[in-house]
Amino acid sequence: MKKLKAGLIGFGVVGTGVFQALKKYEDYGVEITRIAVKNIDKNRTIEFSKELLTQNVNEIVEDSEIDLIIELINDPEEAFEIVTQAFQNGKSVVSANKKMVALYLEELFNISKKNNVKFFYEAAVCGSIPIIRTIDQHFQSDKIKSIETIANGTCNFILSKMVDDGQSYDNSLNKAQELGFAESDPYSDVSGEDTRFKLSIMIYHAFGQYIHPENIPMQGITSLDNNIIEYAKKHQLKIKLIGEALLANNKIEAKIEPKLISKKHDFYNIENEYNGVIINSEFSGEQFLKGKGAGSYPTTLAVLSNLKDIRYNLASTRFKNNERFGKSNSLTDKVYFVSGSKEIENSEGFDILEEFSNHKIVKTNFQILNKLKLKDEKFYWAEINKELYDDFTKVESLL
Amino acid sequence: MKKLKAGLIGFGVVGTGVFQALKKYEDYGVEITRIAVKNIDKNRTIEFSKELLTQNVNEIVEDSEIDLIIELINDPEEAFEIVTQAFQNGKSVVSANKKMVALYLEELFNISKKNNVKFFYEAAVCGSIPIIRTIDQHFQSDKIKSIETIANGTCNFILSKMVDDGQSYDNSLNKAQELGFAESDPYSDVSGEDTRFKLSIMIYHAFGQYIHPENIPMQGITSLDNNIIEYAKKHQLKIKLIGEALLANNKIEAKIEPKLISKKHDFYNIENEYNGVIINSEFSGEQFLKGKGAGSYPTTLAVLSNLKDIRYNLASTRFKNNERFGKSNSLTDKVYFVSGSKEIENSEGFDILEEFSNHKIVKTNFQILNKLKLKDEKFYWAEINKELYDDFTKVESLL
Repeated sequence: MKKLKAGLIGFGVVGTGVFQALKKYEDYGVEITRIAVKNIDKNRTIEFSKELLTQNVNEIVEDSEIDLIIELINDPEEAFEIVTQAFQNGKSVVSANKKMVALYLEELFNISKKNNVKFFYEAAVCGSIPIIRTIDQHFQSDKIKSIETIANGTCNFILSKMVDDGQSYDNSLNKAQELGFAESDPYSDVSGEDTRFKLSIMIYHAFGQYIHPENIPMQGITSLDNNIIEYAKKHQLKIKLIGEALLANNKIEAKIEPKLISKKHDFYNIENEYNGVIINSEFSGEQFLKGKGAGSYPTTLAVLSNLKDIRYNLASTRFKNNERFGKSNSLTDKVYFVSGSKEIENSEGFDILEEFSNHKIVKTNFQILNKLKLKDEKFYWAEINKELYDDFTKVESLL
Repeated sequence: MKKLKAGLIGFGVVGTGVFQALKKYEDYGVEITRIAVKNIDKNRTIEFSKELLTQNVNEIVEDSEIDLIIELINDPEEAFEIVTQAFQNGKSVVSANKKMVALYLEELFNISKKNNVKFFYEAAVCGSIPIIRTIDQHFQSDKIKSIETIANGTCNFILSKMVDDGQSYDNSLNKAQELGFAESDPYSDVSGEDTRFKLSIMIYHAFGQYIHPENIPMQGITSLDNNIIEYAKKHQLKIKLIGEALLANNKIEAKIEPKLISKKHDFYNIENEYNGVIINSEFSGEQFLKGKGAGSYPTTLAVLSNLKDIRYNLASTRFKNNERFGKSNSLTDKVYFVSGSKEIENSEGFDILEEFSNHKIVKTNFQILNKLKLKDEKFYWAEINKELYDDFTKVESLL
């Protein structure tokens, strides 16, 4: 087999890992012939020929000798330009850019299809978990009914600190930043935006339909405080930021929010940088996958596995697209647990189901909750599912 | 794309499911043109043309119009004859026959390779969990260090009954048989043999090396009794039949045995018909997969996904085979928990570490244990890992 020639865009930890692996293992059949970097003079610790480097991305994207592009930069707009140009020049692309993929997924697929090239991005979703591959290949013959995911390691780390060590949100975030688990601007992680990007990509593969991330209601972890932590501890629960999407009445319902998780739930033991996905399907029932969601090695592995897919000429768009579903926000009208100050009063769309020390179990929805939060920044909450709520009510009544 | 013509061998629940799915979904590109059955006159509830049926397998295997064989019978020797003949006639094969695959894996691969045909058997290992696909494709660029698996739903069901409901082994087995979870002859399940077949297949894909099932030491669940159940309950532990294989000093160590599992372990929540696999690799760390291990739908799905693989011309033998490992039994010399009668005495290779009511925590190995069991059928045991043992010692000392 003829070796494929690849252009690498971005030479950070993942790019370096991919470069080294391809150099070491001849049998990949992929050779990096050009590398685009921002700063050509930067000191780099690995061994490589300086002649590979260029600061001009066009030298790669316009190079007719190059078969495929490995796109590993951060900026989604810049990446989109590069990738579409590559497609138009007949090059396949492997990308790890979740934001670019999520924001432009449908457009990117259409352009890649039109140009008869391949487009893979396993590394963009849940790191080492081969979730896109599993949905596309294994579940292709099945009908997926729902997806639940823990897709953000930073939130996981912060929530573990808060529940296990009783730390405040601020202290937990600081610790995460100290240890390099969180960015100096943690917005995308803690707001739920990062999870939303990943859920949007999973929805496209699982249901064959694109929902723009901004159309998925989300609630992050910034409004949780010690009262709910105390409540979680009392009931041996954990709090996790969950993204979920399900098919109901031919409509896709999706949302991102923190949830109380009981010991019997598969997500109970997902800590720190680990991610998890539960797929519920017609044929298979529940399928659970857990693995490292971030880090240079897991990401490198996902990129390498996609290079093999291109090498073996695997079809990239294997999901069915013959059913059209609508989008509904009714999932966001479900029962919630809200733990607020004593001053909360019953009001429209806001039913207090039960009081318990400083906590109130409340039925409401995203919209009402956000309004209340605007008035009083001390609101905090997590969803509780109906069964869990009934269980607690039973427990409480015994106290 | 030209439709592929398939011959179906075996028309039970899985065969029927596959047949119906292929009839319903034109876009599979696979059409069943012939079905081999034992009894052509049997009453069948589904709609199909009787002309498809034959009692003569050769009519399918020798039919030059047929591109591939879907092998779904029970007998491993008969299946082996059919499959090798199909390979020699240039036909690809999808099989769900774990026993045939495990017993003849290396031979089957060589024959399929020689005849340039494909051979897939995802349905043979852990039902709905796409473990072979995940190892072959996702982990192909990684180095797998160990595999742990719960691969037998019958044992899981029995062990849950024993630990959660305090039932005896015999009662639990009877219940499993009543509900159709266990065969009338449960030997293969409860002895660990079934788990051994599946582990052997996983070892071939994960380490690129064939270890015949008979060369994997095994211990089933028949020798557990109420004392150990009581112990597990006291410490909030569960007992699971675990198959494991790991690479140590360039040797593959493998065994099957019941283990005590703590709450923090990913296997803790695997109950009834669910299976699980933990893969530990150099790049990804721990990866955990959980799903239904048996049942007609999950098995049907796995067969269908393999048919797509053939349709999309996916390479079947993508694992690396460039390293050669030896085989070692040193894993079976590790510390065990043994809960036996008071009469157990210290003897050669059998160190009593601690006594606790009717239990004794003992360090020994498979060989010694089997000798002791020959003398006294009332021995029963489960492995305990060193950390867990230390934990318990601490707990006990507080009582």
